[in-house]
Amino acid sequence: MSDRKMKIGLSLVSNGTHPAGWRLPEAHADAGLDFKLWKQMAQAAEEASLHFVFLADGIAVRTAAADLDALSYSGRIDQFEPLTLIGALSAVTEKLGFIATASTTYNEPYHIARKFASLDHISGGRVGWNVVTSWSEAEATNFGRDSHMEHTARYGRAEEFVDVVRGLWDSWQDDAFIRDKASGQYFDPAKLHVLGHDGPHLKVLGPLNIARPPQGYPIIAQAGSSEPGQELAARTADLIYTAKRTPEEAGAFYDSVKNRFPKYGRSAADALVLPGIMPIVGRTMEEAKAKYDRVQHLIHPKVGLAMLARTFGDLSAYDPDGPLPDDLPVLDGVKSHRDSLVRMARNENLSIRQLYMRVTGAAGHNQVYGTPDTIADLMADWFNRGVCDGFNIMAPYFPGGLTDFLEMVVPVLQQRGLFRTGYEGATLRENLGLARPEHPLARQQSAKVG
Amino acid sequence: MSDRKMKIGLSLVSNGTHPAGWRLPEAHADAGLDFKLWKQMAQAAEEASLHFVFLADGIAVRTAAADLDALSYSGRIDQFEPLTLIGALSAVTEKLGFIATASTTYNEPYHIARKFASLDHISGGRVGWNVVTSWSEAEATNFGRDSHMEHTARYGRAEEFVDVVRGLWDSWQDDAFIRDKASGQYFDPAKLHVLGHDGPHLKVLGPLNIARPPQGYPIIAQAGSSEPGQELAARTADLIYTAKRTPEEAGAFYDSVKNRFPKYGRSAADALVLPGIMPIVGRTMEEAKAKYDRVQHLIHPKVGLAMLARTFGDLSAYDPDGPLPDDLPVLDGVKSHRDSLVRMARNENLSIRQLYMRVTGAAGHNQVYGTPDTIADLMADWFNRGVCDGFNIMAPYFPGGLTDFLEMVVPVLQQRGLFRTGYEGATLRENLGLARPEHPLARQQSAKVG
Repeated sequence: MSDRKMKIGLSLVSNGTHPAGWRLPEAHADAGLDFKLWKQMAQAAEEASLHFVFLADGIAVRTAAADLDALSYSGRIDQFEPLTLIGALSAVTEKLGFIATASTTYNEPYHIARKFASLDHISGGRVGWNVVTSWSEAEATNFGRDSHMEHTARYGRAEEFVDVVRGLWDSWQDDAFIRDKASGQYFDPAKLHVLGHDGPHLKVLGPLNIARPPQGYPIIAQAGSSEPGQELAARTADLIYTAKRTPEEAGAFYDSVKNRFPKYGRSAADALVLPGIMPIVGRTMEEAKAKYDRVQHLIHPKVGLAMLARTFGDLSAYDPDGPLPDDLPVLDGVKSHRDSLVRMARNENLSIRQLYMRVTGAAGHNQVYGTPDTIADLMADWFNRGVCDGFNIMAPYFPGGLTDFLEMVVPVLQQRGLFRTGYEGATLRENLGLARPEHPLARQQSAKVG
Repeated sequence: MSDRKMKIGLSLVSNGTHPAGWRLPEAHADAGLDFKLWKQMAQAAEEASLHFVFLADGIAVRTAAADLDALSYSGRIDQFEPLTLIGALSAVTEKLGFIATASTTYNEPYHIARKFASLDHISGGRVGWNVVTSWSEAEATNFGRDSHMEHTARYGRAEEFVDVVRGLWDSWQDDAFIRDKASGQYFDPAKLHVLGHDGPHLKVLGPLNIARPPQGYPIIAQAGSSEPGQELAARTADLIYTAKRTPEEAGAFYDSVKNRFPKYGRSAADALVLPGIMPIVGRTMEEAKAKYDRVQHLIHPKVGLAMLARTFGDLSAYDPDGPLPDDLPVLDGVKSHRDSLVRMARNENLSIRQLYMRVTGAAGHNQVYGTPDTIADLMADWFNRGVCDGFNIMAPYFPGGLTDFLEMVVPVLQQRGLFRTGYEGATLRENLGLARPEHPLARQQSAKVG
């Protein structure tokens, strides 16, 4: 029997992943800005030995007239800013990791490098950066632009941005700070390095005004599934998130991205692929199904139709309990996604309401309900097939949607030997089983010696 | 007897304000990145009922060849990034305020508005933003520029930046979030406001993706003494820092800045002026003097000469124990500062070493030594003359330079009725006695009613 164990992160956003979760009687509707609750949730995740809390993020509210009414019926609007939040949460935990999202399109690499380095020092090496390139027009307009940077340019900038950030993290060698009280010398100038980056998208001199992070580099996470997204992940990522509904889809993605590693001098073991999963847990299957149906039926039709409108345009004139009409307009967007939804609706004879319930709850991620055993079965199946290295658990509502998983499913995974019962190391890297990147000069030195 | 009481903040930077403080046997030389120590210091400040911890900041290391050698003999190089740090510190305190520096020249207002709003929610209304425009060429080169924005343009951008940030904080009215589980409506769209700012320096649509901060606006602090700096302070600041060595200088500044308030529809009581003071405390005057001399003589000559070089050019060819030479080059820079140093050196017959000791320790702020009583006397004198509303205490080294003040001077101020013995309110605004800014629409409403 292999002693390979799952890596499990926890995705927390606003008042939960499910857009109607906040409407449940037992849910905290104002969880988004309730720090005491977030502290309790982080401490509960640590108690369960989870690897990290992951914070998705966006930097806009979509207030176009067409969106606003539906938006006002959706939760997940107000939430803490991730970097400030993980600073706070790391101060009230000891072992848990924290991964925060920050955009390479609307940030400066010096600030990003510095803030994550600072967080890594504050937390004793427990943080990571989820690299995103942003996707909405609304974000552009908050940062002095009239329109969003197009996809290729965004990824060009992202590749360069990650390199600049890693270069800034290497400003100081690990042993640069001497702090010799007798001589008065505080650091060795020979161990301070000026980056001097001047590229197509970015110009940054350096050095960074903070010592090299405890992890060398904080963990780098990435979720892009496009070709450029997978290339960026294969070259730079330690963690890769993905939204897949079946083990077959997950396996195809796993192979696709991991096969790209050798070309960047990396092995498939250098990064972990964690699909997202939103579990609704019941003590019996009946209870789980009832919980699931309850929250699904709380999705306001305006919210569900707004979700479908991104793919199909406005469907509000049609009977929500009738079928998807045949004469749908063709919008810009991902054709494969559209085709897959149409196929699903036709094959399963879904009404418009049933279709939006399928896609709205977890925004394309795998949403499942079941008992602790059936959910553990599903996770074990994916894991044992080798289509993932663990999971990113998306808590549907707070705090019950989280505590159900921690208190009911985690013990089953532990009993089956699929999940650890405590933290192996001090840093997030150590706990994920990923090596600490040496400083480039130390790497050269090792190569010479070896 | 007036019941007017001092407001007291605590300025903490890297391993202490004094550049040689870290060399003292009792100092933590690696305090800059020791979060456990910062947590203890913040909790000690809270125990003493101080109003806030203030974090100065810069976003560069000056690595020009001329600076590097001297820099390597100075402490205060590596330190936490302030916004991430105050997130962490606010999670381990209950009442203490936190003020972090962020530049308007090298940041985006959406990020600044959002991060401070987030910190205000995390802390329950205990944070503030110290608005700076940055000053060094080195900072420009970390943010894609070849040279620093000139002074007038910097202040033009700063004025606009503060307005945009306050506008973004007003994106949501205080009662915009309904969170009605029954109807499914999460917020009232009529209480969401799109800023739509398009000005000479900045273009930002909004709205912010976080509810209005608990304080309405987090505290705004400002330290510029130039004409544009004083205008910005008079129009927008709640707290004003200043570096003044005598009560006469402090009084002149106090009147100068507070006389500008009425033109912006504000009263002098709407903001607090807090001069910086770096105290070295001893149980006797002899002990205090010995402590002071000890730390002053630990200033490495390279560090002292580098400090003077900013004003006078390179003096390393001269005898450090001889007088300031007569034939000094005239550099760009603040002429009044240069003239004041020359006058001081001539009048008091100071050697080069004595001169750099005067200016290096607290970087132009008032550096004093004495017993708890004599330091309290000095503070009481300034306060009772009405040349300040309190002080920003700059701890010379960590942790002793801080705990000496908290444990010895604060009780004397409390016994004299000059300082409070506990927190009056929950938010930093309440504890500073400053009103919570109403939302502009609420202000209009009040005006109509009144």
